[in-house]
Amino acid sequence: MRAVQYLEVGQPPRVVDVDVPEPGPGQILLRVTAAGVCHSDLTVMSWSADNFPYQLPLTLGHEGAGRVEAVGEDVGSVAVGDSVVVYGPWGCGTCRQCSLGRENYCPRATELGIMPPGLGRPGALAEYLLVDSERHVVGIGDLDPVQTVPLTDAGLTPYHVVKRSLPKLYPGSVAVVIGAGGLGHVGIQLLRAVSAATVVALDIREESRELALRSGAHHALPSAPASVDTVRELTDGAGATAVFDFVGAQATLDLAGQMVGMDADINVVGIGGGALPVSFGSPPYGTFVGTTYWGTRSDLIELVELAKQGALNVHVERYGLEEGPQVYERMEAGKIQGRAVLVPEG
Amino acid sequence: MRAVQYLEVGQPPRVVDVDVPEPGPGQILLRVTAAGVCHSDLTVMSWSADNFPYQLPLTLGHEGAGRVEAVGEDVGSVAVGDSVVVYGPWGCGTCRQCSLGRENYCPRATELGIMPPGLGRPGALAEYLLVDSERHVVGIGDLDPVQTVPLTDAGLTPYHVVKRSLPKLYPGSVAVVIGAGGLGHVGIQLLRAVSAATVVALDIREESRELALRSGAHHALPSAPASVDTVRELTDGAGATAVFDFVGAQATLDLAGQMVGMDADINVVGIGGGALPVSFGSPPYGTFVGTTYWGTRSDLIELVELAKQGALNVHVERYGLEEGPQVYERMEAGKIQGRAVLVPEG
Amino acid sequence: MRAVQYLEVGQPPRVVDVDVPEPGPGQILLRVTAAGVCHSDLTVMSWSADNFPYQLPLTLGHEGAGRVEAVGEDVGSVAVGDSVVVYGPWGCGTCRQCSLGRENYCPRATELGIMPPGLGRPGALAEYLLVDSERHVVGIGDLDPVQTVPLTDAGLTPYHVVKRSLPKLYPGSVAVVIGAGGLGHVGIQLLRAVSAATVVALDIREESRELALRSGAHHALPSAPASVDTVRELTDGAGATAVFDFVGAQATLDLAGQMVGMDADINVVGIGGGALPVSFGSPPYGTFVGTTYWGTRSDLIELVELAKQGALNVHVERYGLEEGPQVYERMEAGKIQGRAVLVPEG
Amino acid sequence: MRAVQYLEVGQPPRVVDVDVPEPGPGQILLRVTAAGVCHSDLTVMSWSADNFPYQLPLTLGHEGAGRVEAVGEDVGSVAVGDSVVVYGPWGCGTCRQCSLGRENYCPRATELGIMPPGLGRPGALAEYLLVDSERHVVGIGDLDPVQTVPLTDAGLTPYHVVKRSLPKLYPGSVAVVIGAGGLGHVGIQLLRAVSAATVVALDIREESRELALRSGAHHALPSAPASVDTVRELTDGAGATAVFDFVGAQATLDLAGQMVGMDADINVVGIGGGALPVSFGSPPYGTFVGTTYWGTRSDLIELVELAKQGALNVHVERYGLEEGPQVYERMEAGKIQGRAVLVPEG
Repeated sequence: MRAVQYLEVGQPPRVVDVDVPEPGPGQILLRVTAAGVCHSDLTVMSWSADNFPYQLPLTLGHEGAGRVEAVGEDVGSVAVGDSVVVYGPWGCGTCRQCSLGRENYCPRATELGIMPPGLGRPGALAEYLLVDSERHVVGIGDLDPVQTVPLTDAGLTPYHVVKRSLPKLYPGSVAVVIGAGGLGHVGIQLLRAVSAATVVALDIREESRELALRSGAHHALPSAPASVDTVRELTDGAGATAVFDFVGAQATLDLAGQMVGMDADINVVGIGGGALPVSFGSPPYGTFVGTTYWGTRSDLIELVELAKQGALNVHVERYGLEEGPQVYERMEAGKIQGRAVLVPEG
Repeated sequence: MRAVQYLEVGQPPRVVDVDVPEPGPGQILLRVTAAGVCHSDLTVMSWSADNFPYQLPLTLGHEGAGRVEAVGEDVGSVAVGDSVVVYGPWGCGTCRQCSLGRENYCPRATELGIMPPGLGRPGALAEYLLVDSERHVVGIGDLDPVQTVPLTDAGLTPYHVVKRSLPKLYPGSVAVVIGAGGLGHVGIQLLRAVSAATVVALDIREESRELALRSGAHHALPSAPASVDTVRELTDGAGATAVFDFVGAQATLDLAGQMVGMDADINVVGIGGGALPVSFGSPPYGTFVGTTYWGTRSDLIELVELAKQGALNVHVERYGLEEGPQVYERMEAGKIQGRAVLVPEG
Repeated sequence: MRAVQYLEVGQPPRVVDVDVPEPGPGQILLRVTAAGVCHSDLTVMSWSADNFPYQLPLTLGHEGAGRVEAVGEDVGSVAVGDSVVVYGPWGCGTCRQCSLGRENYCPRATELGIMPPGLGRPGALAEYLLVDSERHVVGIGDLDPVQTVPLTDAGLTPYHVVKRSLPKLYPGSVAVVIGAGGLGHVGIQLLRAVSAATVVALDIREESRELALRSGAHHALPSAPASVDTVRELTDGAGATAVFDFVGAQATLDLAGQMVGMDADINVVGIGGGALPVSFGSPPYGTFVGTTYWGTRSDLIELVELAKQGALNVHVERYGLEEGPQVYERMEAGKIQGRAVLVPEG
Repeated sequence: MRAVQYLEVGQPPRVVDVDVPEPGPGQILLRVTAAGVCHSDLTVMSWSADNFPYQLPLTLGHEGAGRVEAVGEDVGSVAVGDSVVVYGPWGCGTCRQCSLGRENYCPRATELGIMPPGLGRPGALAEYLLVDSERHVVGIGDLDPVQTVPLTDAGLTPYHVVKRSLPKLYPGSVAVVIGAGGLGHVGIQLLRAVSAATVVALDIREESRELALRSGAHHALPSAPASVDTVRELTDGAGATAVFDFVGAQATLDLAGQMVGMDADINVVGIGGGALPVSFGSPPYGTFVGTTYWGTRSDLIELVELAKQGALNVHVERYGLEEGPQVYERMEAGKIQGRAVLVPEG
């Protein structure tokens, strides 16, 4: 089968021929119907050969959707032909965290060598994808796989932080989304779907602010110090109670720290290289600054339900599998609007 | 192998010879080290042949501990020789509830014919026990299986309701445990271990009240209307904020309704045949009356940790496997103190 | 001033002249701008003279809005001229429950003789209303008092139960509202505003089902046994995870018990005289059946914010203060659509 | 009356004569029975005259206990002679945060000029103390004021962070307390009282480690890098799920960041001048780093209940009011063990 692989550190990915895997006991083989291309792959491909954490060649792609092609023994909950998306942050399945579906925080995964598809294990940018367990797929029924596949990361990552900050998203509160790009514009839709908070989007790009407003933001402002005053005004001086920083650069984290009030949450989601120092009294008293990683199993199940309700509308650009390497080039050049999705049949 | 089976509706269980099962993919075969005998089996064996829900013969026993004898393909987290206990309320493993480890409330289990060991599937009162998935065992290390096996039901059931009522168990609150028997005395220990609530035990039997006090109850009272006044006095008239009724008879549920204050939880745990009517204003405003079933996967994981800390001390009577039928007789006659545990090697 | 008073048990209320009260230290005098007439007043006026809990004559009305006319010493947070609504379920203000704003469940209020305006203390159906503390008013800015005053009970009561059942209102869950009348249609709007649950309304009246759909319900069904099947179908057999019964009659509570799945919440809100018995296994395992009373201080603060966002649209009929007695008559005869609001200036 | 006042920036405090205040409407005058001396006063007295936030002279002391000497009009819940402690972080009393008793995070206090006793308003290091509202006192019955007064800050501050991190303090989890001094040793007792977490104390001083063990810590280690390994071993490599840093120096915050696992809480409590940077992936995924300030009203109410149960044992040194200035000197020199409490009658 054809697969987009990262073959050598420092070299661009290529489309190559590899064997179609076979599902062993408990496993599921998917005919890939859609695979999302994520900006974080560029980060992976920027790492040097020293300490590069994954074995090469590596089939890329940690956002996958597919139709069940075959199942191994002991798989009971899905059948050949089912349309599913893949839960990516695989854990051990048996520890306390995994028992709660919080496999994204499984403390044993690293030690056991468990890695997500596309981030260690063969990923979704291929004609077929092997999933290790039925608990890692979620049925999507008649949903369009191309529209739905970005939910597995570009949707799941913001939903996870929205859910954990839900107590701060009460009516009358102000939530700030920094970066209305691939994850951010979904985050805005999610905030509107599950809370009554007022949503303020910050972005340096005008087209992203327009996307933010179309996604349901009540206000869209430049990502700049002047917007701190606007947020203070909107909150009678109190400050935002939740910030979701999908950029994570020093400048945006600084804004986050200046915009929040007391007893707030700052969610550091973006891989922008910045750091927000937390000391006694800064950010304001009672505020939590948190890191995050992907989402939980129940988060993904709920997201698919939101999609079925029509609550989500991910901005997608569709490409063929063979175009994978070029898509990464375009992404590097900042030429992708929304989420790029590869379709093998395409 | 030898197994205690319920062979025919209305007849007492018997010890019979059956084949040792073999583990298929994903499954685990245990050499049983201890198996708890539960009062609810008597309820099962009291049901009439019409609508009897399980196929016969049925190997009894839904509390199981064992040493891993063999594992099927695709089992990675346990190894031959490991000492484990079994999580009993098996669910489908893939729905939202199961993704949260709440398999005890899996909405699909019945439809899929999934049943717990000893309650539909072959149970633990045998020399070997087959477990369907590695997610349904929890390692117990060096803990004594005989002391530990009752945690899988007699511990898990009370722990589940204690955890869900935790917001009502703040310092200064009064929790009432009705029935300080097999489950109740563990419930008292659990309340003391994870909360600072004042614990009041109610029981009609003096020896059970003594067991309650030894288990950590601050007060032990007769299960009688006069105790309503005592609880009111202890709470400056406000009433208890949490009741755990391990009896569930009409008389005890009536007491529960009279003892609670506003904004309280009444947990109906016992199969005593009573019913507490809920209407506008009764029980007091803001109070929840809830049913329950067994516990979650993370509940059991936490319970084993509590046992490792030495926080739990279950009153156990030890018997050989061959004595199983007599143990049920003694239980029926009210002659078992604490939890009866069968040990195959015994 | 003019006031609608209940003067004698069994006699209809009358409009009479009474003295304008004066605010003492900590108190606030409001010029009433709107006062809601609630069905529960009919319940109060149906009680017999034996054990009638309030002193007569009693100025009716527990939903009040007004403009601050005067403040006593030690009132700092409101000023003459402010437009406010009144939080009704007054508590002691100092116990643990009151410290959390849960004055509706204050265990000391009864013992201290603290009663809500219109339910013991002089109520809002008058030209002026005396409020005992600044903590019992919430500023409404430019909101229309006539549209806003029903939020203090017809909004607050459903919001309180929606908030406490929020963990059961996840995407993909089904919430059932029984009775789409004065409280129910607001409950539907609230469910839509703060959750992504699918909302099913049940009502025996076709016009109420239409109101339910206009209020945002996804489905509106007759309040009848056949609707149990529909809810089961909508949930793949699992059942609803939250029911809000604003009727509370035996028939509706029976439906509630039949519609829920495991691990659900049934909120008994209506004063319909029914009772739902809770026993081991019924309603389904893990389900809570709860009583409720009005709401918390933060609930009301959040509700006013929701109103400012335009998320709520209460169906209101406007009357003059002098028409109060006739409004009760019309209400008794089932001739009031939505919420009746008296306007003293009217 | 005699009072310990800070008269001039840079000068040591002095005992002076000032007028006894009189309680206005809503206010309470206390005859001080005990007043705690807190290390944070030294921080205040280290600030320069520029931007010094309080008016001078300032009566010091933000931990107060007293007997009610007189009450103003509109005070109903306390009576002359009652023994109480004072809740210090006063808020506006009417905003959403205050409605939840979270006055420590009142967004309007600063704007309204509301300040705590001893930190802007006249404090407790005097013969009499004026409290602005009955909601700011909690009755302590027969408890010894000297033993109890430190709970109002040295107890309340740790209890607040223990409560907010309670979901991370499950059986089997490891909680780390850094700094087993005045606040830390109470924090250890609180962790033991309300959770079943394993408690590890870190302190550079051997006598503090001994105090930690007497306070209930399971382990007491040097506050040094080697202890990171010990915590990793205790958690099978996973790391602590909650850290309470009562020092807040750079060295301790660094340790905190190295000791936690994923999905953990780091509570920055101490005013040690350090800062912990939060960026994508550091500290580990899913971890929150939070600031904090004092506690809520319900926290203090619960603490007093814990004290009544005998669960708390604060290490106290008792002094006369006249000794106040010397106590600050001794504190500066590191010569106070535990909490210094001044007793006016002493």
